[in-house]
Amino acid sequence: MKNNGKSNGWIRKVSPALKPPSLSDNTADVDRLIKGLKKVLDTKEVHVDLSLAGKVPSSLRRWEYHVSAFVYQEHDSWHLIDIKDARDGEKFLGLALDLGSSTLVLRLMDLETGERIDETSFHNPQIEIGADILTRIHFATREGGLSRLQGMLIDRLNEEIKALTQKQGMGQTSIMGMSVAGNTTMTHLFLGLNPYGICREPYIPVVNRIGLILSRELGLAVNPGAPVLVAPNVGSYFGGDLIAGILASGMNRQSEISFLVDVGTNAEVVIGNREWLMACAGAAGPALEGGVADMGMMAGPGVIDRVVIDPVTREFRIGTIQDRGHTDGLGDERPVGICGSGLIDLAAQLFVAGMIDLRGKFVEAACGDRLVEMDGTRHLVVVSAEDSGTGHALTLSQTDIDGLIRSKAAMYTILTTIANTVNISFTQIAKFYVAGTFGSYIDPRSAITIGMIPDLPLETYVSLGNTSLEGAGLALLGTEAREALFQIRDQITYLELNVNQEFMNLFSAAKFIPHTDRSLFPTVAIGDGS
Amino acid sequence: MKNNGKSNGWIRKVSPALKPPSLSDNTADVDRLIKGLKKVLDTKEVHVDLSLAGKVPSSLRRWEYHVSAFVYQEHDSWHLIDIKDARDGEKFLGLALDLGSSTLVLRLMDLETGERIDETSFHNPQIEIGADILTRIHFATREGGLSRLQGMLIDRLNEEIKALTQKQGMGQTSIMGMSVAGNTTMTHLFLGLNPYGICREPYIPVVNRIGLILSRELGLAVNPGAPVLVAPNVGSYFGGDLIAGILASGMNRQSEISFLVDVGTNAEVVIGNREWLMACAGAAGPALEGGVADMGMMAGPGVIDRVVIDPVTREFRIGTIQDRGHTDGLGDERPVGICGSGLIDLAAQLFVAGMIDLRGKFVEAACGDRLVEMDGTRHLVVVSAEDSGTGHALTLSQTDIDGLIRSKAAMYTILTTIANTVNISFTQIAKFYVAGTFGSYIDPRSAITIGMIPDLPLETYVSLGNTSLEGAGLALLGTEAREALFQIRDQITYLELNVNQEFMNLFSAAKFIPHTDRSLFPTVAIGDGS
Repeated sequence: MKNNGKSNGWIRKVSPALKPPSLSDNTADVDRLIKGLKKVLDTKEVHVDLSLAGKVPSSLRRWEYHVSAFVYQEHDSWHLIDIKDARDGEKFLGLALDLGSSTLVLRLMDLETGERIDETSFHNPQIEIGADILTRIHFATREGGLSRLQGMLIDRLNEEIKALTQKQGMGQTSIMGMSVAGNTTMTHLFLGLNPYGICREPYIPVVNRIGLILSRELGLAVNPGAPVLVAPNVGSYFGGDLIAGILASGMNRQSEISFLVDVGTNAEVVIGNREWLMACAGAAGPALEGGVADMGMMAGPGVIDRVVIDPVTREFRIGTIQDRGHTDGLGDERPVGICGSGLIDLAAQLFVAGMIDLRGKFVEAACGDRLVEMDGTRHLVVVSAEDSGTGHALTLSQTDIDGLIRSKAAMYTILTTIANTVNISFTQIAKFYVAGTFGSYIDPRSAITIGMIPDLPLETYVSLGNTSLEGAGLALLGTEAREALFQIRDQITYLELNVNQEFMNLFSAAKFIPHTDRSLFPTVAIGDGS
Repeated sequence: MKNNGKSNGWIRKVSPALKPPSLSDNTADVDRLIKGLKKVLDTKEVHVDLSLAGKVPSSLRRWEYHVSAFVYQEHDSWHLIDIKDARDGEKFLGLALDLGSSTLVLRLMDLETGERIDETSFHNPQIEIGADILTRIHFATREGGLSRLQGMLIDRLNEEIKALTQKQGMGQTSIMGMSVAGNTTMTHLFLGLNPYGICREPYIPVVNRIGLILSRELGLAVNPGAPVLVAPNVGSYFGGDLIAGILASGMNRQSEISFLVDVGTNAEVVIGNREWLMACAGAAGPALEGGVADMGMMAGPGVIDRVVIDPVTREFRIGTIQDRGHTDGLGDERPVGICGSGLIDLAAQLFVAGMIDLRGKFVEAACGDRLVEMDGTRHLVVVSAEDSGTGHALTLSQTDIDGLIRSKAAMYTILTTIANTVNISFTQIAKFYVAGTFGSYIDPRSAITIGMIPDLPLETYVSLGNTSLEGAGLALLGTEAREALFQIRDQITYLELNVNQEFMNLFSAAKFIPHTDRSLFPTVAIGDGS
């Protein structure tokens, strides 16, 4: 997506026409610059920081009054970020950051053309303190804990920023703006705000809507005058990453009703259109990400992401992630584990092949000698020790399947509950957007087969990839997109999921493959196990 | 003058009504505070700094949501300075500073009532670097010079601020705002801006209009979130001290035309009313301040500030400054020198008694044995060695009088030139405001007698004292006064004094006592020396 940063972005490079001072025009240097900026920006207020004011006179003289000014807008005022020699014609850059609790993705962008220049992703260094967010929240309340958590984040970001800019032969001060989207806790840790209240009744963040922050306040190694835009949170359990995701999906601009779902440990769901938006979040459990299965692991080379079982021969065709991506057949990489999308495929194929029944239990007759007993639990051998990349057989236990079914049932129940709340039936859904890197690997056909998502035409499902990063990028480039971020936040109604009797009834009904009410999944083939 | 700070000041203390959060109202703490502030301030934008946001949650809980918020307005937005426990009911304070090149005056004010609480004046610590401003400008261009000059100023101010607040039993963080008025160079040195361009053609300051600055940017020991208002300059030779002076005089609100004159080394003159203002500044020479006379010195105990000569007996009655102020007669303090106002009195009385002629030359016959020859120049013994506090005779030389006459002629010429430029005759002047501590000691009758100021009814002359400090105080307290400061600055036309033939002709004509054109001074008695 191209931006129109030059004409209507909120971070701009402008070149005011300045005449050198003379005895007949002895306007002060900073006032002269401000006057020029007001004219070119057609605005009444331009603010120049004291720290910048000091460098204006010598710079203007050195550059013979050929100045490029980098400015940003907040409310009705423009603020000077920095000035450079207009004759250099250097690029001016920005950063969009997806501030994930496990993975951070940093995108370097050209703020003049809106182009992506480069991108890097890396583990959140706070994993050293705790992989889960609650451990970090507790750590933050310790003496010095909060600043340690913030410090390790900023330090790591600064290393990556340095590497990204050096690769382009650019200085870090060429980065004139940054946009950040993360969940509420990560946003707090990034800003050095205590997340204590987030996980305790009544679940109060320090702040949901924070104004622009100067990069120097955060110690970020970009231009010290660069503004940092932080995507606003709806509340403790619905963060700026999802608001950015809605922006990236465009569902807030469409007349038709869409779903936006981010699948993870938490299932985060938004339904709505340009008139209204409702959101909720609920624990779906880590099973959907493959995180808890015996053979489960995060996506990476050798990890199973596609499974096809011949419904007649019950022969397994296993796809693994290659160094360069995915394949459909058995690749060079021997399988070492399974990721979430592979697990959903596997469960769907086992059901279609009649190897598990509608309760998700192994069907002995169909599984044959693939079924083994280990530690008192039945396991299905997915990959034999000989074919495995680990030297051991890769197996799926009954417990793994039970966990997956609880998770998919939770997801389907959340979708049903929010749709019921707004009195919308699934057939009225024009688009079902799936967000997140993990979500982009899920085969909607398999997810429908196990009854995780509604049985809608496959073209309804659209995988959007990293919407948090994408939304952060859009908000960095465009004034309207930035405003939309806050409009979405204010427009959204957050549905507090009450785990009441009705919810539990829906959940129980969804704990079957695909569902107790088969009429909800007319396209799902019924395997031998039914 | 009372302010109405509580109702319409730009720095305010407000107490938003906040309800504690609950599961049914889980607005984030900072958002909750902002919402409350928007309501009580009836505004759309309230900005909370990241550094303050972090302390909001624990403070609100500790104070059970009874919060006093200190806020300031800039453009259409309000900014949070700090929060305190509303139940404490502590005073909230402000500082007005007259940033003189020789003397600094700091006034502590109650921002709620507008009352002056205390005041202190002290020498500018930069005098150590150089008594005159040019030496400091040169020093500022040396390596580290600028930050040294700024540092000594800030350090000294911080000491004085500490002493002022401790005397009141208050903490320095109770100071929620500050307002500063100084000349252009002093303003630059206070802000750490290089004054290099001020004294070099084409005489360009770094900045004339600077927005509010946070005290922490300057290292001032007041509340770190307190805004610092700096009175704007017109240009290199017409600074914020004079703009503040115009505000304090009120001439910018009157329909009648007034003069405002600040007498010093530079004669700074403003003429105008609520419709228009014209200003100019010119070198009057240090003679008017008594600075260069042999017996000249700054006002202080034992310094002559009043002289009366009996026109018949030619007996001298000498008034000196006592420890507690001025007297009319000969006090306990023996005279040690003469200050500017004393010198003007002395010259006027010498003229009236016929002891100097209209060219200012000693009239031997009238001076008698008071006239002595020293170092080839004629001197008049004002105080004999026996009566003097120094053990030596205090004398006035012909050179001293010549200097005084040049200075008074320069002053009168500047007044004439600016009045001619706007085509106003002196008789149209309703008020002639005299600004400055030095100006307040001048006897208008004596100044008229020597032809330094126009021969207007004495009630036209109004001594205003420290208008720079007074104006800074007004701008600190009131929104309208603050706006007026910038309106005055934008409204004023600066008259560049061209020392051309016409000016020189006027100057030559004014180099007589009172003037070559005696009809300009009808009330001046002609002494024997005429």
